[in-house]
Amino acid sequence: MVELFRLSRPEDALEALLSALPSGTFRRETLPLEEALGRVCSREIRSPQALPSFVRSTMDGYALRAADTYGASEGLPAYLQLTGEVPMGAAPSFSLKKGECALVHTGGMIPEGSDAVVMVERTQKSRDDEIEVLRSVAEGENLVQIGEDVAAGSLVFPAGHLLRPQDIGGLSALGIESLEVAGKPKVAIISTGDEVVPPGTRPEPGQVRDINSYTLSALISDAGGIPVKKGIIADDYKLILSGAKSALEESEALVISAGSSVSVRDVTAEVIDELGKPGVLVHGVSIKPGKPTILAVCDGKPVIGLPGNPVSAFVAARLFLLPLVRRLLGTEENPLNTAERSVRARLSRNIASSAGRSDYVPVRLIHGKQELPEAEPVFGKSNLIYTLIRADGLVSIPEEANGLHRDDEITVRLF
Amino acid sequence: MVELFRLSRPEDALEALLSALPSGTFRRETLPLEEALGRVCSREIRSPQALPSFVRSTMDGYALRAADTYGASEGLPAYLQLTGEVPMGAAPSFSLKKGECALVHTGGMIPEGSDAVVMVERTQKSRDDEIEVLRSVAEGENLVQIGEDVAAGSLVFPAGHLLRPQDIGGLSALGIESLEVAGKPKVAIISTGDEVVPPGTRPEPGQVRDINSYTLSALISDAGGIPVKKGIIADDYKLILSGAKSALEESEALVISAGSSVSVRDVTAEVIDELGKPGVLVHGVSIKPGKPTILAVCDGKPVIGLPGNPVSAFVAARLFLLPLVRRLLGTEENPLNTAERSVRARLSRNIASSAGRSDYVPVRLIHGKQELPEAEPVFGKSNLIYTLIRADGLVSIPEEANGLHRDDEITVRLF
Repeated sequence: MVELFRLSRPEDALEALLSALPSGTFRRETLPLEEALGRVCSREIRSPQALPSFVRSTMDGYALRAADTYGASEGLPAYLQLTGEVPMGAAPSFSLKKGECALVHTGGMIPEGSDAVVMVERTQKSRDDEIEVLRSVAEGENLVQIGEDVAAGSLVFPAGHLLRPQDIGGLSALGIESLEVAGKPKVAIISTGDEVVPPGTRPEPGQVRDINSYTLSALISDAGGIPVKKGIIADDYKLILSGAKSALEESEALVISAGSSVSVRDVTAEVIDELGKPGVLVHGVSIKPGKPTILAVCDGKPVIGLPGNPVSAFVAARLFLLPLVRRLLGTEENPLNTAERSVRARLSRNIASSAGRSDYVPVRLIHGKQELPEAEPVFGKSNLIYTLIRADGLVSIPEEANGLHRDDEITVRLF
Repeated sequence: MVELFRLSRPEDALEALLSALPSGTFRRETLPLEEALGRVCSREIRSPQALPSFVRSTMDGYALRAADTYGASEGLPAYLQLTGEVPMGAAPSFSLKKGECALVHTGGMIPEGSDAVVMVERTQKSRDDEIEVLRSVAEGENLVQIGEDVAAGSLVFPAGHLLRPQDIGGLSALGIESLEVAGKPKVAIISTGDEVVPPGTRPEPGQVRDINSYTLSALISDAGGIPVKKGIIADDYKLILSGAKSALEESEALVISAGSSVSVRDVTAEVIDELGKPGVLVHGVSIKPGKPTILAVCDGKPVIGLPGNPVSAFVAARLFLLPLVRRLLGTEENPLNTAERSVRARLSRNIASSAGRSDYVPVRLIHGKQELPEAEPVFGKSNLIYTLIRADGLVSIPEEANGLHRDDEITVRLF
């Protein structure tokens, strides 16, 4: 077990956790296309066909042989015989010979014998069955060729790709009506603490309602996992150990939000070390808030111990639990919901910080007349959940810095 | 009916649509807290209680009377009698008198008579029942006061607030186990086009599979609405009119993706104008792609006509359909999923554009050694859905510009 007093840098801590996990162990399930939005492809998808599957016009105009228009101009138009109209949604029932053309609509198929389309605006009707083409048309002009969008057999999505709205449309275009995706990982959540009661209970003096089970559940859902709230367990080594064991058995990962006092945090680390090998990998990260975070892998399953303080738990969960859920989904991409959104802003006041530690400070954005919004730190003791609720995002102060200055241009990670 | 040839600027077009909608007509429903993530509060929420509801210690230490420590230093410590320990989750069964202190843990309640906590690190145990306090402690030090997080009766969330993970935790802290949110608006989708077939059908030559019903459904889900696919209707005024009428009756909004040819687009506008008053508000927007977009309000319900071309439909839907769904939810905030995520990047090559029109160009981001990623335009004819799939986001070229230059620093809106 690694000691709390050897703090890990946050990026090293995450790397230690992810690299100790077995790879590719996620469950797979097959879903109808309509339900695949935001899910992760569990295997690569190749195109079963060329798209488009026939040569299409990109304009309203006339299909023709380009060679028939060479040298045409407004002064000396090319005269072509209009032999028919291609109906939308059907192959033309005729083919074109030299000197002939056919009316075609945007997206329509061109007749055999034609190799270009002239826009209707570049033509004049000289007779009912004849048009004048007022400029030269190049071969292939205003056409989409077979396979120009997607070639048959080509890679459409690699394994690990997270499906966006346009991706659903693209699969529909290929006739792919169902596909295999990574199953949503079940992540069990245990809150510990003798003082913690469920939200439905009226707290007695000295008691507080459970916040972390709810915040963490929401973060896990957002990241694409299935949160499983295992309730509140009193600060007792044996009770927490047996609760954690059974929770981990039925889930793909476990998060324990520990009590805030030092003695209780130590109990959590001891419990996690008992759950399997190699056990605790990281105990203590050089971040504020969130320092007492524990990262572990127990017999192949990840376990995270978070501080009981709801602000610390939230900040540490964003840093470690969200990437973990993505990893359990087999993707490096951000789920749509939790994708890191950030904006540039200007700091409204100085923030002090200690070097050797990454600080995360909640800020509220104030949009004024300046180009950049103003980021105003929301200070508050670290266990006040509403400091996060009054904030729009977090500013991180890098570990080598001693703070940030008023008017510094900074990046705010929105939440 | 507004003519296509009087193009509206995109911001004016959206404003015309939103300002013609009746306000506050959204449905409301009451949900358990666990299901409220990403939903929108339909009325303001005020705190039923103060949070915290008792004075709490923020440290492991000793509760005491600050006055007993005034002037204390390492050389001249204050000696206090240790009278007990406050158990977590309960009110202390004793009170403190002058010269007394009690062991208290982080988050614990302090005994009556005490007004501060000294960190355990700032003390020494002189005897089993006595400690030395090595510095002066201020009144209120290391305490969170009643209501310091949230005052009783104060505004927690305004109506229209979109609930984030930390907000769910904050409501749990207040014992709010269910709440009223805006109902998800049903948005009907009709695809028109004689050439369009469902994805489960093998297209005959000249036919293509439906893309827009799927892309638009996914965008609507993402924005917090319920998409209702009404299928494909042939390009026939009467069929489209009767399909649109019945779709609008059972939904809160309607999107029609029209065919791409001019004649078919005109049919769509005529149909929409028949659906109710005032009818078509905007017919044609100065954007590329997406110019033939139609925005309408018909007897109080919004109707959008989108180009049939899947790229145009997608770009226009992001500009108009997403804000519309947010409006139907009663919020100005971005739903978690569709929140505008953007990054700064450097353009890899020149892009030409016409002044007087806002262009939206799909770009792929390439992360190299430079500070900013490179944004590489994904060119392709505008009806190739895979240009959007190969892209990471859109760059907009403002209407007053004639294009963008290689190495320009730009903002990419991710999708």
